[in-house]
Amino acid sequence: PASKLPRVGTTIFTVMSQLAAEHQAVNLGQGFPDFAVPARLVDELDKTMRAGHNQYPPMTGIPALRQAIADKTGRCYGWRPDVDAGITVTSGASEAIFDAVHAVVHPGEEVIVLDPCYDCYEPAIELAGARAMHVPLDPLTFAPDWGLVRAAITAKTRMLLINSPHNPSGAMLDAGDMAAIADLLRGTGIFLLSDEVYEHIVFDGARHESVLRYPELRERAFVVSSFGKTYHCTGWKLGYCIAPPALSAEFRKVHQYNTFCSFAPAQHAFAAMIQAEPEHYEQLGAFYEAKRDRFREQLLSTRLKPLPVPGGYFQLVDYSAVSDLDDLAFCRWLTTEHGVAAIPLSPFYENPPPGQRLARLCFAKNEATLDAAIQRLRKL
Amino acid sequence: PASKLPRVGTTIFTVMSQLAAEHQAVNLGQGFPDFAVPARLVDELDKTMRAGHNQYPPMTGIPALRQAIADKTGRCYGWRPDVDAGITVTSGASEAIFDAVHAVVHPGEEVIVLDPCYDCYEPAIELAGARAMHVPLDPLTFAPDWGLVRAAITAKTRMLLINSPHNPSGAMLDAGDMAAIADLLRGTGIFLLSDEVYEHIVFDGARHESVLRYPELRERAFVVSSFGKTYHCTGWKLGYCIAPPALSAEFRKVHQYNTFCSFAPAQHAFAAMIQAEPEHYEQLGAFYEAKRDRFREQLLSTRLKPLPVPGGYFQLVDYSAVSDLDDLAFCRWLTTEHGVAAIPLSPFYENPPPGQRLARLCFAKNEATLDAAIQRLRKL
Ligand SMILES: CSCCC(=O)C(=O)O
Ligand SMILES: CSCCC(=O)C(=O)O
Repeated sequence: PASKLPRVGTTIFTVMSQLAAEHQAVNLGQGFPDFAVPARLVDELDKTMRAGHNQYPPMTGIPALRQAIADKTGRCYGWRPDVDAGITVTSGASEAIFDAVHAVVHPGEEVIVLDPCYDCYEPAIELAGARAMHVPLDPLTFAPDWGLVRAAITAKTRMLLINSPHNPSGAMLDAGDMAAIADLLRGTGIFLLSDEVYEHIVFDGARHESVLRYPELRERAFVVSSFGKTYHCTGWKLGYCIAPPALSAEFRKVHQYNTFCSFAPAQHAFAAMIQAEPEHYEQLGAFYEAKRDRFREQLLSTRLKPLPVPGGYFQLVDYSAVSDLDDLAFCRWLTTEHGVAAIPLSPFYENPPPGQRLARLCFAKNEATLDAAIQRLRKL
Repeated sequence: PASKLPRVGTTIFTVMSQLAAEHQAVNLGQGFPDFAVPARLVDELDKTMRAGHNQYPPMTGIPALRQAIADKTGRCYGWRPDVDAGITVTSGASEAIFDAVHAVVHPGEEVIVLDPCYDCYEPAIELAGARAMHVPLDPLTFAPDWGLVRAAITAKTRMLLINSPHNPSGAMLDAGDMAAIADLLRGTGIFLLSDEVYEHIVFDGARHESVLRYPELRERAFVVSSFGKTYHCTGWKLGYCIAPPALSAEFRKVHQYNTFCSFAPAQHAFAAMIQAEPEHYEQLGAFYEAKRDRFREQLLSTRLKPLPVPGGYFQLVDYSAVSDLDDLAFCRWLTTEHGVAAIPLSPFYENPPPGQRLARLCFAKNEATLDAAIQRLRKL
């Protein structure tokens, strides 16, 4: 029988990480930090295991963690979700995105995504029997054109998927965007899925415009975040979804029969960590801003042209002064011939803008790692 | 819009665990051990975290764990799956079941399940847009009638789902069943999904008839297992799926965009554990057999009639000498009035056999826990 996902291959992140390993390249491709997890988190996790919290946690997440998430959300965005009925812990943000789509998107319906976008969105939509409708962001600024989004809405549109800070560009939605989204969705039955995994990695004094700040938006939204990005542990695969009780109820029907629940000891560890060290996520923007600034400064000594990075931990570079290769070929060449792995942008698009010469570099790395990469990039 | 899973409520396991907590009942309902995880596993996990293995592991699972699974499978079943192309680590067996169904079952197709069956099967099938076709097992022995299964096969049948040792009954499929399944599926395009999470918990010298022993079956099968059942850590949520390379490729397309990968430190810990202490899983049958025998002996002093338990860690009891309530009402009453939580069988059925008076008790518990339960059950 035919494949259900005929167009799905190995994700570009795995492809480039493997290529990096084969060629001993400095891996600035797949997005993950190469520095340590906060010590408290490791200690708490260990303590929890030894205290015997190793059996099924509640399907929705342990109460202490949902409480910590509610408190933190209240502090950050001025609104506190319902601990029992409005927060669900998941096995990473990916699962949360998958579950949200499967919870409310019916076969034959449409989900609007803004290109470039993260590569797990479309397969989730396709598996739900629905169709991803791709609306391009501005190819230079990665700003949405809400007029184009409005034009893409049909009677079949069930969901709009947004992501801020944006992967791969780092662009951020602002208060005007939030108002525009509210205008677009008012009076429709369209849900909002907001991928906010980089919520605490924002720069230059900007404010993260979480959907959760806006009553009119959050009442129809699934807001997804991740502990992996905030606590330097992408391999721990813990995330969560905040949604109104009625939507959380549908979300949980999927989650309950997908993974059911998530690694219990980490839930205890994050609950303790969030309450004990709020300064960790409060300082995360400054921590990454220093890395960003240093890395951009260093990039000036290369022939790669850095684009602005309002948030997240990725730096886009324009390589057109260096090469005329398309972005996939360029990133392979950079990895194999110059020992620096990067991520091309075309896999984030249905229709990559012709002639776009951009690559994504992850700066969630130790200074030594970034220094080694820069040394190699100077030779371009 | 209408719910996509209108019939899904809170799983019976959560319902009964909550009722147990509210009434300080001894919880023999939801299946989880109340004794410690092997010390080596905790130590290895801790070591791994501190060694810095906290970023994305490979999507398919770390090589050392896939290697350990391949070795163990070879030792147990005389056939070694392909380490790279035939094994995928998942966030629990539930995710593996969900992914296998979504990988190959198309909307409008049918999946045959044998009732009573675990409650995550049907929602996964429904979310894939397919239909679960329920074929009853024998209401007394829980043996399959392959003639009934054959009669349920239509042009739309895409998958047969089996489970041995069986939850809730503990019944095991034998070599004759395997031959019958091979006969049934030969020449069809029907896949086999075999839930073998209790593979190492088998009694009385019986041999677990893994589908992996049978070339004709494994070439069309997804075989799912779980570390949680084998290593007393149901809250760690790590499992895996063994399938031929072509099926694993489709499976991984779903897994890649569902959870992508699973908690990295536990993968390292299980890899070390499996290789260092094979006696753990080799002795698991004897470990649980002693618990089973002691518990059954104690049950003779109550008015509950224990059914045979060939495998798994659940004891079915016939309560018809005690009560005429239906099983859901009986289990609630047992929990609230007598302080012992049990699981009714009717939620495992599309059509529960009329008049069936059975409840499921989990004996994966310390002696003190089982003793406390027995004391209460004697008062019935
Ligand atoms: C799941 S691997 C990809 C990690 C990531 O978020 C990225 O590199 O964009
Ligand atoms: C996911 S909670 C249910 C645990 C279990 O396998 C059972 O009790 O049957």
